[in-house]
Amino acid sequence: MKISDAETPRLLLDPDRLQRNIDMMAARCAGLGVKLRPHLKTPKSVKVAECAVPDQSDPITVSTLREAEAFAAGGYKDVLCAAATAPTKLAHADRIQRDSGSNVILVTDSVSLVEAADEKAGELGAPFDFLIEIDCGEHRSGILPGSTELLAIGAALKDAKNLKLAGVMTHAGHSYALDDVEKIADLAEVERAAAADSADALRAAGHDCRIVSVGSTPTVLYARHLDGITEARAGVYLFWDLAQYSRKICTLDDIAVTVLATVIGHNRAGGSIVLDSGALALSKDDSSNTFAPDTRYGYVCDAGTLERFEGLSVDRVYQEHGMVPVPDESWFDRLPVGTQVRVMPVHTCMTCAAYDVYDVVRDGEVVETWPRVNGW
Amino acid sequence: MKISDAETPRLLLDPDRLQRNIDMMAARCAGLGVKLRPHLKTPKSVKVAECAVPDQSDPITVSTLREAEAFAAGGYKDVLCAAATAPTKLAHADRIQRDSGSNVILVTDSVSLVEAADEKAGELGAPFDFLIEIDCGEHRSGILPGSTELLAIGAALKDAKNLKLAGVMTHAGHSYALDDVEKIADLAEVERAAAADSADALRAAGHDCRIVSVGSTPTVLYARHLDGITEARAGVYLFWDLAQYSRKICTLDDIAVTVLATVIGHNRAGGSIVLDSGALALSKDDSSNTFAPDTRYGYVCDAGTLERFEGLSVDRVYQEHGMVPVPDESWFDRLPVGTQVRVMPVHTCMTCAAYDVYDVVRDGEVVETWPRVNGW
Repeated sequence: MKISDAETPRLLLDPDRLQRNIDMMAARCAGLGVKLRPHLKTPKSVKVAECAVPDQSDPITVSTLREAEAFAAGGYKDVLCAAATAPTKLAHADRIQRDSGSNVILVTDSVSLVEAADEKAGELGAPFDFLIEIDCGEHRSGILPGSTELLAIGAALKDAKNLKLAGVMTHAGHSYALDDVEKIADLAEVERAAAADSADALRAAGHDCRIVSVGSTPTVLYARHLDGITEARAGVYLFWDLAQYSRKICTLDDIAVTVLATVIGHNRAGGSIVLDSGALALSKDDSSNTFAPDTRYGYVCDAGTLERFEGLSVDRVYQEHGMVPVPDESWFDRLPVGTQVRVMPVHTCMTCAAYDVYDVVRDGEVVETWPRVNGW
Repeated sequence: MKISDAETPRLLLDPDRLQRNIDMMAARCAGLGVKLRPHLKTPKSVKVAECAVPDQSDPITVSTLREAEAFAAGGYKDVLCAAATAPTKLAHADRIQRDSGSNVILVTDSVSLVEAADEKAGELGAPFDFLIEIDCGEHRSGILPGSTELLAIGAALKDAKNLKLAGVMTHAGHSYALDDVEKIADLAEVERAAAADSADALRAAGHDCRIVSVGSTPTVLYARHLDGITEARAGVYLFWDLAQYSRKICTLDDIAVTVLATVIGHNRAGGSIVLDSGALALSKDDSSNTFAPDTRYGYVCDAGTLERFEGLSVDRVYQEHGMVPVPDESWFDRLPVGTQVRVMPVHTCMTCAAYDVYDVVRDGEVVETWPRVNGW
């Protein structure tokens, strides 16, 4: 199918840009001397995983058990579910491990969770590996490095009959608040030290700690070194987006997914073009606007060349309408009702979540359709 | 299944609240003397439609052709797709009409779309009914009442070989910017007059205009009368949400959908409880905050009683994490890791869109599972 015949909104994926991004990060992690454990919460697609992680014994990261289930069924053997778990999730994790023979590594920052999870694992007759989550400064989740809780959780895992300590992880998510490469490199060092020092403390207390995991796309890209770290997690580099572009971490030419939209109206009184792609098709994420206020809900681009139409962004979104103010009336002639455009996403993880599939596009043709794994 | 055993996040629906909301709006429209054409872009569920519109010959509204397809397959015969259409969508609309025998009414505000759609309809051998969209002041889409374009579009539809003018529609979406009943009633009158006057102008020019359609939940609720109007569209009243609560249009006891979430961590350093429900599970919509800044990304409630925990809202969201600042340390004892809570949605249309299904809950048990129709 030609994209010019396609009904919209639709999520398009450029496989050459994807491959370039994959190669870039693979080279980067090889240079750092760490294993890459790609975060597949961004693509949520086994087909994308097959490009990014061709060897299915290599490690991957996910953020939901539904993703874990899909990737394990797709052959991936080493699956880290990187958001802290709860007792009601263990039966699902157990089913995944039994059905696939894969290892689903879970995460916690709580002694009480370890105790409750051990009891549940006993009922299930299932063993689970756990990473302890460290808070390296984002103050979202995790325990502070050097805290007494670290050794308490380590001890609780050692005491547990069905659980095993596999290591530590941390995530410098606050790197997304920076647009300065030197500051990102400084933060990468804080992230590295938080994980490496926590691993050292656990080892000094007699615990094994085979996995020492860090990562966010910006810190992995700009870390000066990753000594003491075994693996890096990153996800958004696969597709990139305007949030990362706004922080100068990627260029517009790196962005591999776009929303194909159609002009459904000309609001001449309001000086806007109306697209059929609004809050559901693009998401209401506006996190690129801190550093690039003209990005709004996405840059509007030529559907063929993917060149940005200078000055055109989706400025307001309703459930199914996107409003694109135009600098002058000539745009109504340039983009008549029925014209297709492509919108670059502000936050690719949020935008992609609205779609069941990627349409993989080469030379204006949909050459393949790759399913996504949304929900929980 | 007991909800206490359920994996989260999960979308719960209270069928008694839904039925109460349905009865309220049915009585309201009967009192106004207009037909209710519920906007099913909110529930996107045939099972909810069967509650809200038990007679399948009664009219319904949708915002995507995927919804139109599902509801037509479910037996609904009179389906208005209320977002303006484009030529690439007509083949889909044609398939729906042929497969179901239902009437899919389309919308436009453009002469050039009428011409292009007529050509496409000719190729398909398919007839389509159209409403002309009127802009009653929101300045999103539609033409201004009394504009010369109105009669031009009417004439273009008369000239079209395959298209037929069915009437006019308008939507006072700017009613969502008001929290004052008198102002909403004033706006409802503007909305009514825009539609009724446009219908009169078309009839005076010799056109049939059987449908004269207005609506947004607030204006339908507070209109002083709807003389000259044949039908009212409203959707969010089915479930309600904090955005409507913030405008005093509903109470918390009316809100029929909530997200079941689990406490996955205690961030004692940051004074927050961490939920497993973040930006994907709740959406990043924060439109309730204009009038109720404490709503943030949703009120946190007791999972059993649905009573709000005073002072507890989801304040920050990450992809899969929701942060709930607590007023004091006692909350860590009241809500231990593993505890379930329910989050009231800010904007129900956006929140529900993340889920494949509703879990219909009575007395803490999931008694049915109702599928949703997401995407395009």
